[in-house]
Amino acid sequence: MESQAEINDKKFLGELLTLKEQVKFRERFALPQDLRDVVIAGMGGSGIVGSIFKELYSKLPVVLANSYELPDFVGKGTLVVAISYSGNTEETLAACGEAKKRGASIVGITSGGALAQEAEKVVKIPSGLQPRSALGYMLMPLLNSFEVCKDGSVEETYGILERMDNDNSFGEKMAEEIFKEKYIPLIYGTSPYSSIAYRWSTQFNENAKLMALWSNFPELNHNNTMALKASYRLDELYPICLLSNKSERIMRRINATQEVTGMRFRQIIEPQGTSNLAQVMSLMHIGDYLTYHLAKLRGIDPLDVSAIESLKAKLK
Amino acid sequence: MESQAEINDKKFLGELLTLKEQVKFRERFALPQDLRDVVIAGMGGSGIVGSIFKELYSKLPVVLANSYELPDFVGKGTLVVAISYSGNTEETLAACGEAKKRGASIVGITSGGALAQEAEKVVKIPSGLQPRSALGYMLMPLLNSFEVCKDGSVEETYGILERMDNDNSFGEKMAEEIFKEKYIPLIYGTSPYSSIAYRWSTQFNENAKLMALWSNFPELNHNNTMALKASYRLDELYPICLLSNKSERIMRRINATQEVTGMRFRQIIEPQGTSNLAQVMSLMHIGDYLTYHLAKLRGIDPLDVSAIESLKAKLK
Repeated sequence: MESQAEINDKKFLGELLTLKEQVKFRERFALPQDLRDVVIAGMGGSGIVGSIFKELYSKLPVVLANSYELPDFVGKGTLVVAISYSGNTEETLAACGEAKKRGASIVGITSGGALAQEAEKVVKIPSGLQPRSALGYMLMPLLNSFEVCKDGSVEETYGILERMDNDNSFGEKMAEEIFKEKYIPLIYGTSPYSSIAYRWSTQFNENAKLMALWSNFPELNHNNTMALKASYRLDELYPICLLSNKSERIMRRINATQEVTGMRFRQIIEPQGTSNLAQVMSLMHIGDYLTYHLAKLRGIDPLDVSAIESLKAKLK
Repeated sequence: MESQAEINDKKFLGELLTLKEQVKFRERFALPQDLRDVVIAGMGGSGIVGSIFKELYSKLPVVLANSYELPDFVGKGTLVVAISYSGNTEETLAACGEAKKRGASIVGITSGGALAQEAEKVVKIPSGLQPRSALGYMLMPLLNSFEVCKDGSVEETYGILERMDNDNSFGEKMAEEIFKEKYIPLIYGTSPYSSIAYRWSTQFNENAKLMALWSNFPELNHNNTMALKASYRLDELYPICLLSNKSERIMRRINATQEVTGMRFRQIIEPQGTSNLAQVMSLMHIGDYLTYHLAKLRGIDPLDVSAIESLKAKLK
């Protein structure tokens, strides 16, 4: 008989395998007329969807709401996209309620829960996954509705994610190195894909149950660089750089940062593919596998988020 | 004769003492007519000004630009506020140049440099400080122009900062505790003052030359909480919580987080005063002093940002 750990492990890995299918999710919603600005409300694994969308779409102002409140400008002319995988996130529901009062257009992206009842329009996504494993289902309706993806992006992304699903030894190797010395991961992303570094840090948190440091180029050259040179405990860090592209000025920053601080990245990871979708998803998926393998090495259930569940129960 | 270290120390401490004077800075600029949205471009110690402003003002969409590029929506109807203390930040100058091409209104907030020449309108601020010590000079023109501060805010803030300048033993005590065990600071802010946690982390970076972890309530209850319970190296962390206010639902989150994870905050710091300005500035200034004292304990020059300067020189 399978142990609970084996069952959970299979379930978690099975969820990672669905990401490539998720990018094929074709749902979209109609944009309201006279749309002036967009607010995306969401927390955690649902909230990161707004951050990624904002980096890929900027024809209108996009503002993120990651707590109970909405910005004052929200009203007619604003589309509030409330994203909550479960549909029961208290902050997002509060923001959605506030959006109603203000007369904003509201779209909910959810697998069910109260949000499916509350929102004016709802994009219903498949249930049964961990929110952090359902990023594709939550992101694609936004990208589709705002027509962000160029032709061929989805096919390109599917192929890249499929190859990664078949061979994720790169992430596994990093996991082994981190595990061996109990390193604290230091993830540096690169503008305009800055949200990916944060996503990696939250995957370290939730899957491997580890703290992780993160920042982004070029911002980190204005502050964090000083710590890279002179902090204590630097030998406890495992620095990884996630490239957004190989633009000359960013590559020069990366090289110059290593030169002036003496820090050497353990890995400098290039995005795969040519479309934004493929690049973002490929960078992200490496982190998914790395943190999965790291959980396994630590003897920890990557699926387990019981502390978060207990906390939610206490707040009820 | 004074050593260079003594001279730098005096200069740094002298700069901290000016913050209370900075909040009295009365400069403002006229807002363009038919203003639709605001973009604030800036990096590091200048960029944080935009983050703080965005948390205090939201009658219009405010979008931050923390790299070379501007969002696509920028055009007529957008006010681009380019903030660079030196006036020579390459990313901010690139964003400013782009704003010109798009026909946006542009205001520069700077002590001089190329930005003073480039921007349509310029708010000139006093020179001679470190950018991170000039936050008040850069922030107040924004708050004044958008009429964010209620009557009495400046006076209240002045009094609070003055008391902190006279007695910063609270920050000093924390510095001693962190130094003694070589802790890695873990700073949790609280919405809507989330930018203060990031500001603290960058002050740890630049002043004390230390890495610091940071996140915010309620976001951290959706990911980081798992690491709080089961990460390795947890005994190396020094967790501090910065409150935005004592709203019941946030206090319940803070207590529940401690209960479910077993983590105990070393400090839970309340903001001082009743105005937003006083609260933000008081929370921030404690971090200024903490990181100053920590630099001294480490035998490090808090003023020194030579690695950042070398990096800039290499990129020229």
